[in-house]
Amino acid sequence: MSTLSDGTAGRPRVVVIGGGFGGLQAALQLAKLPVDVTLIDRRNFHLFQPLAYQVATGALSPGEIAYPLRRIFRRRRNVRVLLAEVTDVDLENRLVHVEPVIDEARAETVPYDILIASGGSEYNYFGHDEWREAAAELKTLEGALAIRSEILAAFEAAELEEDPERRRSLLTFVVVGAGPTGVEMAGQIAEIARDLRGDFRTFDSGRARIMLVEAADRVLGAFPPSLSAKAARSLEDLGVTPQFDRMVIDLDATGVTTQAHDGTTEHTDAHTVVWAAGVMAARLAGVLARHAGAELDRSGRVAVNADLTLPGHPEVFALGDMVTLRRPDGSLAALPGLAPVAIQQGRHVARAVADRLAGHPPRPFRYHDKGNLATIGRAKAVADVRGLRLSGFVAWVTWLVVHLWYLIGFENRLLVVIRWAWSFLAHGRGVRLITGEPTGERTGVPRGERAGDATGSGRR
Amino acid sequence: MSTLSDGTAGRPRVVVIGGGFGGLQAALQLAKLPVDVTLIDRRNFHLFQPLAYQVATGALSPGEIAYPLRRIFRRRRNVRVLLAEVTDVDLENRLVHVEPVIDEARAETVPYDILIASGGSEYNYFGHDEWREAAAELKTLEGALAIRSEILAAFEAAELEEDPERRRSLLTFVVVGAGPTGVEMAGQIAEIARDLRGDFRTFDSGRARIMLVEAADRVLGAFPPSLSAKAARSLEDLGVTPQFDRMVIDLDATGVTTQAHDGTTEHTDAHTVVWAAGVMAARLAGVLARHAGAELDRSGRVAVNADLTLPGHPEVFALGDMVTLRRPDGSLAALPGLAPVAIQQGRHVARAVADRLAGHPPRPFRYHDKGNLATIGRAKAVADVRGLRLSGFVAWVTWLVVHLWYLIGFENRLLVVIRWAWSFLAHGRGVRLITGEPTGERTGVPRGERAGDATGSGRR
Repeated sequence: MSTLSDGTAGRPRVVVIGGGFGGLQAALQLAKLPVDVTLIDRRNFHLFQPLAYQVATGALSPGEIAYPLRRIFRRRRNVRVLLAEVTDVDLENRLVHVEPVIDEARAETVPYDILIASGGSEYNYFGHDEWREAAAELKTLEGALAIRSEILAAFEAAELEEDPERRRSLLTFVVVGAGPTGVEMAGQIAEIARDLRGDFRTFDSGRARIMLVEAADRVLGAFPPSLSAKAARSLEDLGVTPQFDRMVIDLDATGVTTQAHDGTTEHTDAHTVVWAAGVMAARLAGVLARHAGAELDRSGRVAVNADLTLPGHPEVFALGDMVTLRRPDGSLAALPGLAPVAIQQGRHVARAVADRLAGHPPRPFRYHDKGNLATIGRAKAVADVRGLRLSGFVAWVTWLVVHLWYLIGFENRLLVVIRWAWSFLAHGRGVRLITGEPTGERTGVPRGERAGDATGSGRR
Repeated sequence: MSTLSDGTAGRPRVVVIGGGFGGLQAALQLAKLPVDVTLIDRRNFHLFQPLAYQVATGALSPGEIAYPLRRIFRRRRNVRVLLAEVTDVDLENRLVHVEPVIDEARAETVPYDILIASGGSEYNYFGHDEWREAAAELKTLEGALAIRSEILAAFEAAELEEDPERRRSLLTFVVVGAGPTGVEMAGQIAEIARDLRGDFRTFDSGRARIMLVEAADRVLGAFPPSLSAKAARSLEDLGVTPQFDRMVIDLDATGVTTQAHDGTTEHTDAHTVVWAAGVMAARLAGVLARHAGAELDRSGRVAVNADLTLPGHPEVFALGDMVTLRRPDGSLAALPGLAPVAIQQGRHVARAVADRLAGHPPRPFRYHDKGNLATIGRAKAVADVRGLRLSGFVAWVTWLVVHLWYLIGFENRLLVVIRWAWSFLAHGRGVRLITGEPTGERTGVPRGERAGDATGSGRR
């Protein structure tokens, strides 16, 4: 194929968009092939998203779940990391248009022979994008830190609040969506409330209300009902109140309004609302679909062929949360938005590139379902591993091993594992910092007399 | 004294402003006395300021140098932590006026029988407050993270920059002020540049220029000249260029302009300028001076009596970076702005309160100079301990022991020490994250098509 020989020294140029699980895995595997790889991401790090909720609750530091991409690829000289945001893709001329993330840098056009699009997903507010303003979400590192600050700030404000109604609202935490993220988040907030007992003087933090609102009739809908029931019981033991069969119909700074199947509505005053109710594909999916004339499903995912190529574009692969697969019968089937799916697809795509270089025909992607895992609190979990249903501490150990296993795909592996295991097992809730406020230095300077609040996070 | 019996169960109410080294130490000691303590700080954590430069350079995580104040005092039931900003002090009616830091909380007036003011300091721009906009500074945790992002962003931008002049500016780092902070910062930037070798594809990060601009004729002016010379040599070995006898006369987004004694000026194009050129007292010092009719020195420090009380107000103590001491001969003598000074003064004040409760006469504060320490890079330092002059690795080990010693004044001591030592010794530059940008999720979503950038740090 002549298109595969335009790179340095005649090597094909492969552009990977997105340094999440799928893109990172693809780039890692491609690095071993005689190709030139450009990995584009707008952040300079890979985020270990499944543990973001631990940052949101102060159990882990950002540095423990985020790895600089350049560090990962420093010894892979055929991989270039480009810190930029993709603005458009020109399928005809095989160009990716990017805008640099750093001010001082210049816009660039990146030509490719093979494109691997792995843009991920974002939270779905089901048409109510204004809710985004009032709800916290976990998709970014900054989002996780904002949730951390918000939860801690609610307790701080409650310490000073004398009105019982307002204090009750401050000490009410609503998590919307009882998938794995929502369950983990609610469980962790309950544990924070417990860990903070003794820290405050005017209330008992153990009496905080944590509500988990779910439109379906159980938590963890992807798990067998028996495990859902066990997870719900564990959550209740921790102090979380699950509310089933309730849809969120309004969400603002005062709290959430939910509606039951019978049409009755209820408003809950809550200072903190965390959104974990489903995701939609990154807009990159829409861009590719439009240019290629491909189909988009209701969640904005682009339909790809069985080998993960874009219809009509064998040189473009798409994978991860932003795609849905076209079955042989023509129907669409989206795989769950899990790291293992993206990782397997990333590997598949790298193998597909190798096959193509060797002149072999394409193979369809096949997902090997390794099971489902979700934690509830510090030492409980549920796991559904190929029909084997685990719960409690055994499931939690399984979860721990699986996460450690995935974590060690990078350099610094020993270090990361030790730091993380240590942090997680030993120190409870050490990273309880309220950061990001534009206040100046560390202590009580009269506000009206300061020279200027140019310091701190608002500086640039 | 009748004023010492208005608190709960007739116990004196002691208000401590500032949870820095001095205020924290005072509150820790006061907690053992039959008094009610209110510790006011606008942050919910104590910052181990001497290691902030390690956060700024990605060697440590914020959680490793910041400890939640409530956690420190959770078992000291006579201590209340108040997250608020002091707006004024009413010396006549013995009231501290505060504004809450958290939106939802209410303003408060805090009555005191004894006040301990420990507001610390901020960077001094010597009348050029507009420079604050263009320079990075290390005084807050957010400032440290902003420096970290700025340094890493400069390297990222250099990777994309094709113009050699502009790239040179991006790879030029200027630190203003060669005191301990400036020396540590310059040394660390040089080490970052070295650590990043191999991460970039279009330049050699080891060729970054790091300049240390100092108005005096040597680094570390508080040390003996022989140690200054050794420190300067170590810096040069690391790749730092010290520039002596040069005053900064202008500073903006393009870089710095300096002037020599002979009047010649020079402009250096530099993307990153870190300000470490001297501090001035927190404005709280001015508030107290005005109300009490006390003197302020040129750095805005309030003059206090030999026992650290405010003139005419035996019930008000002031300490740390915001005070200067009145000598018996009437002259003023400021102690160095070091943690040991503040810590000793905090202990002195707590003892003074105990003395007063016991009816003993006040004693003057006496500073026990334990010596001076500064690190240069990862394993070198200079130390001047009671005339004993150490340099190199021996001094660095001394520095390590001293810092560990101070670190372990808190709960979680074993944990903190292990995490910190581990991080520092083993992992190099792990926390190399560019955070705080208002970008949305993790990867390449076309900017024009996003539903809204409501996620991330800009959310609240």
